[in-house]
Amino acid sequence: MKGAVLYGPRDIRFEERDAPRIVEPTDAILRLSATCICGSDLWPYRGISPVAQPTPMGHEYCGIVEEVGSAVTSIKPGQFVIGSFFASDNTCPHCQAGYQTSCQHKEFISTAQASRLRVPFADGTLVATPDVPSDDLIPSLLAVSDVMGTGWFAADAANVKPGMTVAVVGDGAVGLLGVLSAKQMGAERIIAMSRHESRQKLAREFGATDIVTERGDEGVARIKELTNGIGADAVLECVGTQESMMQAISSTRPGGSVGYVGVPHGVELDGEGLFFTHVHLHGGPAPVRRFLPDLIDLVWNEKINPGKVFDLTLPLDQVAEGYRAMDERRAIKTLLRP
Amino acid sequence: MKGAVLYGPRDIRFEERDAPRIVEPTDAILRLSATCICGSDLWPYRGISPVAQPTPMGHEYCGIVEEVGSAVTSIKPGQFVIGSFFASDNTCPHCQAGYQTSCQHKEFISTAQASRLRVPFADGTLVATPDVPSDDLIPSLLAVSDVMGTGWFAADAANVKPGMTVAVVGDGAVGLLGVLSAKQMGAERIIAMSRHESRQKLAREFGATDIVTERGDEGVARIKELTNGIGADAVLECVGTQESMMQAISSTRPGGSVGYVGVPHGVELDGEGLFFTHVHLHGGPAPVRRFLPDLIDLVWNEKINPGKVFDLTLPLDQVAEGYRAMDERRAIKTLLRP
Repeated sequence: MKGAVLYGPRDIRFEERDAPRIVEPTDAILRLSATCICGSDLWPYRGISPVAQPTPMGHEYCGIVEEVGSAVTSIKPGQFVIGSFFASDNTCPHCQAGYQTSCQHKEFISTAQASRLRVPFADGTLVATPDVPSDDLIPSLLAVSDVMGTGWFAADAANVKPGMTVAVVGDGAVGLLGVLSAKQMGAERIIAMSRHESRQKLAREFGATDIVTERGDEGVARIKELTNGIGADAVLECVGTQESMMQAISSTRPGGSVGYVGVPHGVELDGEGLFFTHVHLHGGPAPVRRFLPDLIDLVWNEKINPGKVFDLTLPLDQVAEGYRAMDERRAIKTLLRP
Repeated sequence: MKGAVLYGPRDIRFEERDAPRIVEPTDAILRLSATCICGSDLWPYRGISPVAQPTPMGHEYCGIVEEVGSAVTSIKPGQFVIGSFFASDNTCPHCQAGYQTSCQHKEFISTAQASRLRVPFADGTLVATPDVPSDDLIPSLLAVSDVMGTGWFAADAANVKPGMTVAVVGDGAVGLLGVLSAKQMGAERIIAMSRHESRQKLAREFGATDIVTERGDEGVARIKELTNGIGADAVLECVGTQESMMQAISSTRPGGSVGYVGVPHGVELDGEGLFFTHVHLHGGPAPVRRFLPDLIDLVWNEKINPGKVFDLTLPLDQVAEGYRAMDERRAIKTLLRP
């Protein structure tokens, strides 16, 4: 079996790897219908998060169950399934509280840019679709595995409610799907912060009512201007840098909420500064498993089409070009077909 | 008129000051029935927050209205009133959202350790009791002005709900009243973190079910032990140091909430670390005005007795001894009688 392996900065290779096999009786083996490249994959790809050794990549996936371990009861071979980027037992107290990415037995899925994948805790991790989907649904179902679930969590963590004014920091795939999520949750006004025309277009398609091209303090000033000096009720932070985090916090009204899902890189929050903003702060690795049933349902019934964020589709063996296109911002997000 | 003035570290003087007078038509002048010393007054008293010049002190107060400005309509001379440490118009969007300490016209009350006090935005800031209270109610009514309102906000910000397990970091007056607040909100188990016998006793009286004497990592380990390795549902941070903040965050279950009301001094939060804890974080200067009507009602009907945190009562002219007693932890909180 061949899969993507990162050797160092901008050195991604498509090479032979051991085929996955059942290790634990709770495992499942999937034949992947699609996988993709995540914005967070660019941190190690760019060398910002260094890799110590050749590292298989990929944590977004959907596909057909080929084989299950002896202890798997609800997931069956032949089913089309989607899982989160963290395997979770879905029974521990953290899972029961809806925080499956803090599962007491969580395992990161890290080898999904390949044709086959081992998924631990298959019963807890995977959710089957009502039937094997038609090909045109695959991109949106794949999106649910991480990027859509993460955008949804950003809006959920920011307490988006009907009628609210919402701002979204970050115009990557997660930010764009944050816009779509806020729209689904009934936000009245959605301000997308973006300076890229193609992304602004998709943001508007997903429900953005306003576009702010300014960043940093100027971006904050613009949000204040658009909200009578008050600030947004909810802000989705979908980047993970110091600038984006401060932009999000400073754009929020006192008592409003920041939902942050961009993995923080070098972010330091000054306690005293945060104190006087009066914002609610919540985020972390999105507990996608909590949202999977509802999001699959929305996609299956064609209420949402998050697969639109994939503006480049390549055969899996061209994975290196997929990374290059995202690194150079020629593509928002690359879908890979094994 | 005489009042307390801080000249430098541990140099508090009781000296002649200008009597307050109506400056704005929205002002009221109060003859104070009681005032007190706040834990936060100890930061400048100890020289940790330096003062550049002789600085009048005090921000907690209750008393009789002596005079009101021409634009004051709801507050009348002769009424007994309580206000928050921030004056607020109670009409701006932030006030309407319940964040009166972020009022667009907020003014810090900073001269309350005196016999008389000017309060701006009297109609927005002050709440009158049903009648002039008997003397024994004064300590609890005074407590509502800040320390009780702040403990209440800590519990409110930490989303305390019936049946929850709550931990309280800090056994000062705010922490102790955080215990009382959690109890009022229906918490089933309340773990007070304290190593002082007299404070443990009061914590138990207010509703604490468990006492943890360990601090830092050991304190966190003990909370985990008491909660089957899960962590508390809600944690009240009532100190404001790096250690107490990290203790609070690390004691919280994923998806749980930290309510922080200790003014942060030198607190830096690592974004990545916070991200993976999955906690909700909310706090800031307590919007006491939001809670005043309900808290006054609870005190008036003798449902709560927050005045118990005052374990030292002195005439106002002995204010210096009041500071010393709190600095040396001989007193939890000092009430001053003008």
